[in-house]
Amino acid sequence: KKRILVTGGAGFVGSHLVDRLMLMGHDVICVDNFFTGQKANIVHWMGHPNFELIRHDVVDSLLVEVDQIYHLACPASPVHYQSNPVKTLKTGFFGTYNMLGLAKRVKARILIASTSEIYGDPEEHPQKETYWGNVNPIGPRACYDEGKRVAETLAYSYEKQDGVDVRVARIFNTFGPRMNWNDGRVVSNFILQALKDENLTIYGDGQSTRSFQFVLDLIDGLIKLMNSDYSGPVNLGNSEEYTVKDFAEKIIKLVKEQREDQKCTSEIIMLPGLEDDPHRRRPDTSLAKKELGWQPKWSVEDGLKETIGYFQRQIKFFG
Amino acid sequence: KKRILVTGGAGFVGSHLVDRLMLMGHDVICVDNFFTGQKANIVHWMGHPNFELIRHDVVDSLLVEVDQIYHLACPASPVHYQSNPVKTLKTGFFGTYNMLGLAKRVKARILIASTSEIYGDPEEHPQKETYWGNVNPIGPRACYDEGKRVAETLAYSYEKQDGVDVRVARIFNTFGPRMNWNDGRVVSNFILQALKDENLTIYGDGQSTRSFQFVLDLIDGLIKLMNSDYSGPVNLGNSEEYTVKDFAEKIIKLVKEQREDQKCTSEIIMLPGLEDDPHRRRPDTSLAKKELGWQPKWSVEDGLKETIGYFQRQIKFFG
Ligand SMILES: NC(=O)c1ccc[n+]([C@@H]2O[C@H](COP(=O)([O-])OP(=O)(O)OC[C@H]3O[C@@H](n4cnc5c(N)ncnc54)[C@H](O)[C@@H]3O)[C@@H](O)[C@H]2O)c1
Ligand SMILES: NC(=O)c1ccc[n+]([C@@H]2O[C@H](COP(=O)([O-])OP(=O)(O)OC[C@H]3O[C@@H](n4cnc5c(N)ncnc54)[C@H](O)[C@@H]3O)[C@@H](O)[C@H]2O)c1
Ligand SMILES: O=c1ccn([C@@H]2O[C@H](COP(=O)(O)OP(=O)(O)O)[C@@H](O)[C@H]2O)c(=O)[nH]1
Ligand SMILES: O=c1ccn([C@@H]2O[C@H](COP(=O)(O)OP(=O)(O)O)[C@@H](O)[C@H]2O)c(=O)[nH]1
Ligand SMILES: O=c1ccn([C@@H]2O[C@H](COP(=O)(O)OP(=O)(O)O)[C@@H](O)[C@H]2O)c(=O)[nH]1
Ligand SMILES: O=c1ccn([C@@H]2O[C@H](COP(=O)(O)OP(=O)(O)O)[C@@H](O)[C@H]2O)c(=O)[nH]1
Repeated sequence: KKRILVTGGAGFVGSHLVDRLMLMGHDVICVDNFFTGQKANIVHWMGHPNFELIRHDVVDSLLVEVDQIYHLACPASPVHYQSNPVKTLKTGFFGTYNMLGLAKRVKARILIASTSEIYGDPEEHPQKETYWGNVNPIGPRACYDEGKRVAETLAYSYEKQDGVDVRVARIFNTFGPRMNWNDGRVVSNFILQALKDENLTIYGDGQSTRSFQFVLDLIDGLIKLMNSDYSGPVNLGNSEEYTVKDFAEKIIKLVKEQREDQKCTSEIIMLPGLEDDPHRRRPDTSLAKKELGWQPKWSVEDGLKETIGYFQRQIKFFG
Repeated sequence: KKRILVTGGAGFVGSHLVDRLMLMGHDVICVDNFFTGQKANIVHWMGHPNFELIRHDVVDSLLVEVDQIYHLACPASPVHYQSNPVKTLKTGFFGTYNMLGLAKRVKARILIASTSEIYGDPEEHPQKETYWGNVNPIGPRACYDEGKRVAETLAYSYEKQDGVDVRVARIFNTFGPRMNWNDGRVVSNFILQALKDENLTIYGDGQSTRSFQFVLDLIDGLIKLMNSDYSGPVNLGNSEEYTVKDFAEKIIKLVKEQREDQKCTSEIIMLPGLEDDPHRRRPDTSLAKKELGWQPKWSVEDGLKETIGYFQRQIKFFG
């Protein structure tokens, strides 16, 4: 039984991680400023003696005594992280700095949630951990991408200089229940649009690719990485690659099957493309397989069914 | 007559900038923590009514009232910036953040000293401002490179969000009098070695290239950039490109001509290469020419003669 801090624990990924760690019997402290997270995601643990929730912004320092830190606090969708780029950079830098300082003081192992975005619009495909990336340092996504890159730099600087025990997960696009309704990401957008018979909005020509992993696979990976001896950065993602257009068609098909009326009149429409939108993305996850014995177990289709079910329930209850 | 803050003003570049601004008749505040800077570089202005020196670390916030800020404070040579990577990152991020906050409060224009290192080991050659770079986010140079990249991101985030008036100079290798003796950079190393008849140490095979500008050209460029209407990043460098080996030979030749005894018995020796050492570097400076009407005026050879003279005097006076 360990004392484990999860920052960003009320968010999409964080709350699933909290669930798993609680079920494993650990003492869990969840820290969140509720910028994009919601109490609803963790409400089922409130009052449990192993669980504690702290409303706190990781831009400020934090004094707690723990054995492990999963540092996830950071807005993750373009709409949110671009709404206040200075704040995003502060969360990326100060947040990571404070958590590394905490890890150093209490000698905790710390896992940093990094992202496939550090590879930018990749010229190497699929992306290996050794790839240095292709990121626009002054574009609209830079506050997130460069914030995550420098967070990695900071983590390995603390490792080298102060012996802090760091793990770095480079997380690829992830989806599942508890994704934010309104965060503009492709999976939630398309599912909600298809459920409401609205047209599916493709930005650009729909030929960009992404690879989507189901959140429960990611949670397995994060926990395996935290408890492994491998301290370099590790990709966590599903290597099934879709064009955005094929993905839209798949979602329409699945939603149709899953709707009570077995209908979906949504069409696919093309809107102008986004600036600096990466053209392709697929993880090479052979390192995770080798070092962690991890690979995704959920097919994209099964994961989508779960997620569609979740959004159906959300619509039913909250309109 | 403007009130101008120069951070890192006791350093190599900063002190030349202070000289020029003082000669132009401005009120100059020089801020430095003397990590790599020296009082000797600015001692000639002490007591002048237009000059003020503040010992201050830019990692902490600073309250002054000024019209322009040249933000140069940051260790610049690999030996220094790698000696404490966490501190380098703090200087890169907190230092820039504080100076941007200051610029915002007092509505000053701020020029950030960025670097050709943000291009990393470039795959585009020569490098244009539109190139996104090839930087290892977790290598030994990352604390400097990623610190500078994120400093640019931060600057343009403040511009976008708070209307801060920013200028960004991407400075390529610069040399001249007042370079640090012991900072391990190639120009000072080779000149000192040649003056002392020691062997010139090449790291790797000597086929890597660099392009070297004389510091007085850079000062012209910085002042022109500060006072121009162009707010995007601008390369400042000399496009004369040398292999390190040719450069070593040139220095031996010039030192021989300039030594009283007209001798130099130094030879060139090859040492193991450095990790992540960029293989080539040359600025495309057409943007600076177009937007600022700037181009280097000093030939590398003339600049080297001045610099050799400087080191000769240093050796004479200080041994
Ligand atoms: N979901 C993905 O596809 C994906 C992909 C790559 C990386 N990641 C990373 O995984 C982590 C979690 O992402 P997510 O999808 O769960 O996003 P999310 O927005 O649902 O969760 C982030 C959580 O962090 C909290 N937070 C944000 N800034 C904070 C601050 N300054 N102090 C305290 N809490 C703060 C938010 O309130 C939220 O609860 C993030 O670090 C993200 O960058 C996610
Ligand atoms: N010289 C080059 O070839 C070159 C190339 C690219 C970019 N630059 C940039 O130009 C600037 C000046 O470089 P330089 O060659 O004069 O280096 P330098 O080391 O001579 O000067 C840097 C100055 O900043 C001061 N400083 C460092 N950290 C500080 C802190 N935290 N607070 C206050 N002062 C601090 C140092 O004491 C020193 O006086 C740097 O930002 C550097 O990154 C230089
Ligand atoms: O238990 C702790 C210990 C440190 N920190 C913060 O972590 C950062 C980095 O800590 P470190 O000890 O490395 O800081 P420094 O030596 O740079 O002050 C600082 O802002 C601390 O306030 C924290 O939030 N909790
Ligand atoms: O309604 C949407 C939302 C997203 N996308 C595209 O889907 C891909 C993934 O976008 P998302 O924001 O989910 O993630 P990220 O770009 O961060 O990978 C990108 O090419 C987006 O342009 C889209 O076409 N329509
Ligand atoms: O005259 C000033 C004004 C601000 N700052 C610092 O600049 C940073 C960013 O300022 P901003 O007002 O943007 O800060 P925030 O709103 O994030 O506190 C803060 O650390 C301030 O302490 C400073 O050093 N001098
Ligand atoms: O004594 C030295 C110092 C540097 N270099 C090489 O010269 C180039 C320029 O190095 P410097 O540290 O001056 O600048 P930077 O690498 O930052 O451009 C690099 O390829 C170094 O490996 C060298 O061969 N011998």
